Amino acid sequence: MLQIGIVGGTGYTGVELIRLLLAHPAAEIKVITSRSEAGKPISELFPNLRGACDIRFSEPDIKALSGCDLVFFATPNGTAMKMVPELLAEGVKVIDLAADFRIKDVEVWQQWYGMEHSCSDMVAEAVYGMPEINRLEIASARLVANPGCYPTAVTLGFLPLLEAGIVDGSSLIADAKSGVSGAGRGASVANLLCEVTESFKAYAVNGHRHLPEITQTLTTIMNKQAGLTFVPHLTPMVRGIEATLYAKLTDSSQNLQSLYQSRYENELFVDVLPEGVVPETRSVKGSNFCRMNVFQPQGGDVVVVSSVIDNLVKGAAGQAIHNMNIMCSLAEDTGLTLTAMLP
Amino acid sequence: MLQIGIVGGTGYTGVELIRLLLAHPAAEIKVITSRSEAGKPISELFPNLRGACDIRFSEPDIKALSGCDLVFFATPNGTAMKMVPELLAEGVKVIDLAADFRIKDVEVWQQWYGMEHSCSDMVAEAVYGMPEINRLEIASARLVANPGCYPTAVTLGFLPLLEAGIVDGSSLIADAKSGVSGAGRGASVANLLCEVTESFKAYAVNGHRHLPEITQTLTTIMNKQAGLTFVPHLTPMVRGIEATLYAKLTDSSQNLQSLYQSRYENELFVDVLPEGVVPETRSVKGSNFCRMNVFQPQGGDVVVVSSVIDNLVKGAAGQAIHNMNIMCSLAEDTGLTLTAMLP
Amino acid sequence: MLQIGIVGGTGYTGVELIRLLLAHPAAEIKVITSRSEAGKPISELFPNLRGACDIRFSEPDIKALSGCDLVFFATPNGTAMKMVPELLAEGVKVIDLAADFRIKDVEVWQQWYGMEHSCSDMVAEAVYGMPEINRLEIASARLVANPGCYPTAVTLGFLPLLEAGIVDGSSLIADAKSGVSGAGRGASVANLLCEVTESFKAYAVNGHRHLPEITQTLTTIMNKQAGLTFVPHLTPMVRGIEATLYAKLTDSSQNLQSLYQSRYENELFVDVLPEGVVPETRSVKGSNFCRMNVFQPQGGDVVVVSSVIDNLVKGAAGQAIHNMNIMCSLAEDTGLTLTAMLP
Amino acid sequence: MLQIGIVGGTGYTGVELIRLLLAHPAAEIKVITSRSEAGKPISELFPNLRGACDIRFSEPDIKALSGCDLVFFATPNGTAMKMVPELLAEGVKVIDLAADFRIKDVEVWQQWYGMEHSCSDMVAEAVYGMPEINRLEIASARLVANPGCYPTAVTLGFLPLLEAGIVDGSSLIADAKSGVSGAGRGASVANLLCEVTESFKAYAVNGHRHLPEITQTLTTIMNKQAGLTFVPHLTPMVRGIEATLYAKLTDSSQNLQSLYQSRYENELFVDVLPEGVVPETRSVKGSNFCRMNVFQPQGGDVVVVSSVIDNLVKGAAGQAIHNMNIMCSLAEDTGLTLTAMLP
Repeated sequence: MLQIGIVGGTGYTGVELIRLLLAHPAAEIKVITSRSEAGKPISELFPNLRGACDIRFSEPDIKALSGCDLVFFATPNGTAMKMVPELLAEGVKVIDLAADFRIKDVEVWQQWYGMEHSCSDMVAEAVYGMPEINRLEIASARLVANPGCYPTAVTLGFLPLLEAGIVDGSSLIADAKSGVSGAGRGASVANLLCEVTESFKAYAVNGHRHLPEITQTLTTIMNKQAGLTFVPHLTPMVRGIEATLYAKLTDSSQNLQSLYQSRYENELFVDVLPEGVVPETRSVKGSNFCRMNVFQPQGGDVVVVSSVIDNLVKGAAGQAIHNMNIMCSLAEDTGLTLTAMLP
Repeated sequence: MLQIGIVGGTGYTGVELIRLLLAHPAAEIKVITSRSEAGKPISELFPNLRGACDIRFSEPDIKALSGCDLVFFATPNGTAMKMVPELLAEGVKVIDLAADFRIKDVEVWQQWYGMEHSCSDMVAEAVYGMPEINRLEIASARLVANPGCYPTAVTLGFLPLLEAGIVDGSSLIADAKSGVSGAGRGASVANLLCEVTESFKAYAVNGHRHLPEITQTLTTIMNKQAGLTFVPHLTPMVRGIEATLYAKLTDSSQNLQSLYQSRYENELFVDVLPEGVVPETRSVKGSNFCRMNVFQPQGGDVVVVSSVIDNLVKGAAGQAIHNMNIMCSLAEDTGLTLTAMLP
Repeated sequence: MLQIGIVGGTGYTGVELIRLLLAHPAAEIKVITSRSEAGKPISELFPNLRGACDIRFSEPDIKALSGCDLVFFATPNGTAMKMVPELLAEGVKVIDLAADFRIKDVEVWQQWYGMEHSCSDMVAEAVYGMPEINRLEIASARLVANPGCYPTAVTLGFLPLLEAGIVDGSSLIADAKSGVSGAGRGASVANLLCEVTESFKAYAVNGHRHLPEITQTLTTIMNKQAGLTFVPHLTPMVRGIEATLYAKLTDSSQNLQSLYQSRYENELFVDVLPEGVVPETRSVKGSNFCRMNVFQPQGGDVVVVSSVIDNLVKGAAGQAIHNMNIMCSLAEDTGLTLTAMLP
Repeated sequence: MLQIGIVGGTGYTGVELIRLLLAHPAAEIKVITSRSEAGKPISELFPNLRGACDIRFSEPDIKALSGCDLVFFATPNGTAMKMVPELLAEGVKVIDLAADFRIKDVEVWQQWYGMEHSCSDMVAEAVYGMPEINRLEIASARLVANPGCYPTAVTLGFLPLLEAGIVDGSSLIADAKSGVSGAGRGASVANLLCEVTESFKAYAVNGHRHLPEITQTLTTIMNKQAGLTFVPHLTPMVRGIEATLYAKLTDSSQNLQSLYQSRYENELFVDVLPEGVVPETRSVKGSNFCRMNVFQPQGGDVVVVSSVIDNLVKGAAGQAIHNMNIMCSLAEDTGLTLTAMLP
C-alpha cells in the first residue's frame, strides 16, 4: 500500500485528490497539510468526507512527509519548489499539481509567474506528466510536473494533427471554456455566485499563464515553433473544460476521424466519439476521461476539434493519480474507473 | 456474481442505478430494457457510460429477465405491477423504484395515482424498503417497494422523535425542497432550464402523492394516526432534497442531539452532524448518505430537523442497491462507499 | 426633480437602487459615496451602468449629501446611525436600507447586531417603511427604516390572517428561502459559485437577525405577543425569496382566498394569485411585486401561504423607492412599473 | 400611439417583445395571437405580465391584424411568409423575427431551412434589419427581416475590421456561445435543466443555419466572398451570447481600439469598452446593448474580438423594436433605455 502525503489540502484540487484516493485500492493517505487549517479535521472543511477520511490537517513538515512514498503538491504556485529538493533527497517521489516545474525555460517561467524560481536546477529533471506523450519518462521520474487544466484539453486535442504534420502549426487557435472551479477556492468578489452565474466572458485575452505551457508542448510535438492564439473563457458551472480548436489543413488526404481513433485507441482515458457526435463536459464530470471529436465543416480547409475534460480530474487530480500509477508500476487505471456522474 | 436486470433504463433513476452498479463488486448488469430505445446502445443515450457499459437496450421480455437473480424497475408508476407476478413466479427477486407497491391501502393508492391496481394481492407481501426501519423484513423479501425520495428524507428526519414519543404527531410539518431531477427526464416545457433555473416555487401544495406514503410510515412508527402537512418545493439545481421538519415538543426532558446520534449510530448511511452544524445537499451529492441535524430554536417547544439526501441515490438508486445487498445477504455498504462529489 | 444621494453604492442593493432610480422620472441621483472606491466611475464597477450613469464614487461627506432632498443608506449595519442625525438636522429625508432603525427596543437591537447603538434617541422617531401597514406614518416621516428582505415576504404573507384574527399567533412557522444576492457582495469563500451552486441548505436555524424584526411587526399587527419559528435557507440562484408560512386556523368560517384578495385589492405591489395557482420567484424578478397565494391543504386546520418577492427590489431597493414616493407625495408607483424579466 | 400586433406570443422572443413594448411610450399592443393558446390571458402563461398586460391570445386573423400599424412575427420559421403578403397589401408594416426573409438567395434558404419558400418574390424587397449597417433602407421599408441572434453578435464584431479592409476575409473564425433561451420554449428532452445545466458543449459544428446569414452580410460588407468557420456552443445560462472572433491582420498600421471606437461612436446600442476590458454577457442582460472589445494578443497578426449581447433583446426583440422606431420615425432609443439587470 502506497503511503501518500498531500501538501495543501484546502482547495478544490486537494479535496478532489482525496476523493479519488479514497477509492484507490493501492494507496493510503497518511498526511494532509495546511498551514492555515492545521489541527482541524479535514471533514470539517469538506463534509462530503465525513466517515470516509478522519485525518486532521497538519503543519507542513518534511519529516512527516518523508515517511510517505509519494507526495502530491496541491498548493499555490511557488510552494512546491521550496520543499521538493528535500523530499527528493529523502527518496520521496513528488507530483506537483501547480506550475512550478512545467516550463523548461526558467526565464519564461519567472516572467509569467512573477516570482524568482528557487529551485531552477531541478526544472530540467522534472517530467511533464502527460501520459499520452511522456509515458516512459514518467515511469522513471522522481519529480513530475502535472499539466495545467487548459493545457491538457488543448494539447490532447491538437496532438494527432500535429504528430501527423497535416496542419499549419504556426496559426493554431484554441478557444477554451472553463467552469469556475478552475479559479480556486480563495475568497474573492470575482468568483461569487452572483458575479459569475448567468454570465459568460472571455478573460486574459492578451495572455494567460497556460499559453507558454501549451506552446512548449506543441512545439516539442511538432519539433518546430508552434504559433498559438489561446483565449480562455469563464462559463457558469462548477466543473468542466471544453476547448474548441481550429487549424488550417495543409494536407487533406487523411481521414481525420480514423486518424484520431487510431492515435488514441490504446489510451485508456482518451475517448474519440463516433463520427459527428459532439462531446459535452457533463459526460466526463467526476471522471478521468478526455472525450473529443474532430470535424471538417463543409469539407473546407479548417479542421475543428472539440475536446472536453473535468478540469479537477483529467485536468488535475485524476491525471496526477494516473501519473502516480505509472511512477509506481501500477495498472494505469487503478482507482480511476469511476463513471462520470450524469445528470 | 448477482445477475441484474433493469426494466426502464432511460430515466435519471435508471442511469444512476447503472452508474452505481458498475462500481458494485458483486453485481453484474445483464439486461436493460426500454421499449422506446430497444436496440440502441445505452452509452449512446448516456455518454458518461461509454467504455463502462456496452449493453444495448432490449425490449422488456420476461424470459430474458427470468435469467436474472434480481430485477429493478426504474419505470413510470403502473409498469412494475404488470410484470412482477411472472417474475416472482420465476424466482426472481424484484425491487420497484416506482410507487406501485408502496401504499398498503389499495383504495388510497388508486385515488392518488389515478389508475386501477392490476396486482393488488401482492401489495400486502411487498416490503417497504427503508432499511433503517424494516431491515429484517427486507432480508427475507421477494418484492421490495423502494421508498420515494421525499418520504426518505422526511421519514428518517422524524423517526427518532416519533419513536421516542416526544412530539405531537398530529401536527407535523414537512417543508421539502427538491432539485429538478426529481421531475424525471420526460420532454416538458415545465422543466426546461429556462423555466426552472433562477427561480424557486412551491408546488402541489394541496396534495402530493408522497403525502399518503409518508403518513402511512409515520403512522406505523407512532402506532397512531399521524397528521402531516407536506409542502414540496422545486429548487434550481439537479440533485438533492432538503427537508425542514417542524414538530411541537410534548416532552422537553431529552437531549435531542443525543437522541438522534444514538438512534443512528449503527446506521451506515445516516449521519447526524455535530451540534449546531447544518447539513447541505452538496455534502451527499452522488453518495448514499442522509445527513441531518436537530435544533430547538431559542429553547422553545418547536423542534426543527433538517435532513438532506441525494434524491437519485439515497432517495432512489442507492437505497435500492442497499435493499439488494440486504436481500442478497451482502454487506450493507457493498458498492455504496462512493464519496460525495464536492464541489 | 428630487435630488438623491446614495451612501454606499458598491453592493447589490446599491446598484439595484441606481438601476431603478435611473428609470424614475422624478428623481435624479446627485451623489454616490463609497469610502473604498472614491474617485472611480461607478460604471467601472458595474458595467451595466455604462452610458446610463456617469457619476464617480465620492467620499461620504455631509456637506455634499446635505444638498440632496433625500439620502438612501445602502451600507452595512451600523453606518447610517452615525450620519443620520446631521442629515436630518440639515433637513434631508433619510431612508436606511440597513437595520439600524428597524428594531424599536434598542437593547434587543444591540444584542442581535452585536454593537452599541450610537443614535438610540432617533429609533423611536423612525418609521418602519412597509407601505402596506404604515402608509400614513411614512408620508410624514423624516427617517424611514426600510424593512429587511425576509421580513417583507413573511409579514405580507401573514398579514391578512393576523388582522382577521383567525389563526393561533403563538405558533407561527416561516420557512423562507433566499437567493444568494441576499448575502451581499463581500469577498467570502462561503458565497463562491462553487460553494453554493447545485446545493441547498438551511442556515441560522437557532436564530437569524430578521427574527426579532418580524416578531416585532407581527406582534404590533396582532396587538399581542407573536410566537414565530423562522428558518431561512439558501437556494442556488441570484434573486428571489420564497416564504412558505404555516399557521393553525382557529376560525374556519372565512374564505381564505377572498380574505387575501380583499385585503390587498388596493395595494399596487401585492398580487394575490387566482385560486390554486402557486407563485414562483421568477414572476417578480426585477420588479417590485410581492406575489402570493393561500392554501388549506385537504381542508384541514393548517393554513399555508406562499409569498414571493425579489429580495433586491420589493425586499430592498424597490420598497425604498416606494417609501420615497410616499414621503415625497409622488404617485406610489412612480418609476416602479418595470415588468419582471422572464425568462 | 402605434397600434401593434404580435403573431406568436408564446415563446421567449414573444414574451420579451411584450415586456419591452409595455415600457415603450409610443406603442400599444393591440393583438397577440397564438393558435394553441387562443382565448387564454397571456398573463396566465407568463405571470410576470400580471397587472401589466391583460390581453388574451387570439387566433391569428388577418382582419384583426390589419387594424395594426405594425405587426411583429415571433413565430417559428415558415409562418410569416404565409401571412406577410396580405398584411403588406393592407398597408401594415411587418418585422419578422424569424428567418423567412433573411437570406436573399431563395435556393440557399430552402436548402438550410428544409422547406419551400411560399413568398419568394418578397425576399428581395425585405430589408435586413441591422440598423448599424442598413439604417436608411430600414427607414423606408415595409418589410424588415430581423437578424438572427448569432449573426447580430458576430457581424457587429467583425464589421469595423471588414469595412477597414485590414484582415483576411477568407479565413474568419467565429466561436460563439449562447444561453439556452436561444433554443426556444418547446418541450424537449435536450433543453431540460438536468440535460444542460452544469455542462458545456459545441453543437452544429458541421453547419448551423446562421452560417449562410452571417456569410451573406459579411460578403456584402467586404464586397467579396467571405470565408467563415462558425461554431456555436451551448452555455448553461438563460440569456446571453458571447462571440469570440478571430481574423488574420493583413495591415497592422491601424490602432484597433481607435478603429472600433470611432466606427461605433454614433451608435446608440454598440458600446466599445475601454482598452483591455473584456465584456461579460451579464452587463447587457435585459438591455439592447452590444458590448465589445478588440485585442491583438502578444502584438501578433491575429486580431481577437469579443462581442456580447442579450440574445432575446439586441439579438431579437430589442433589435426589432429598434427597427420599428426607425421605420416609424421615432427616436431610435425610444422605449429601449432600460438598464441591464445586474446581478
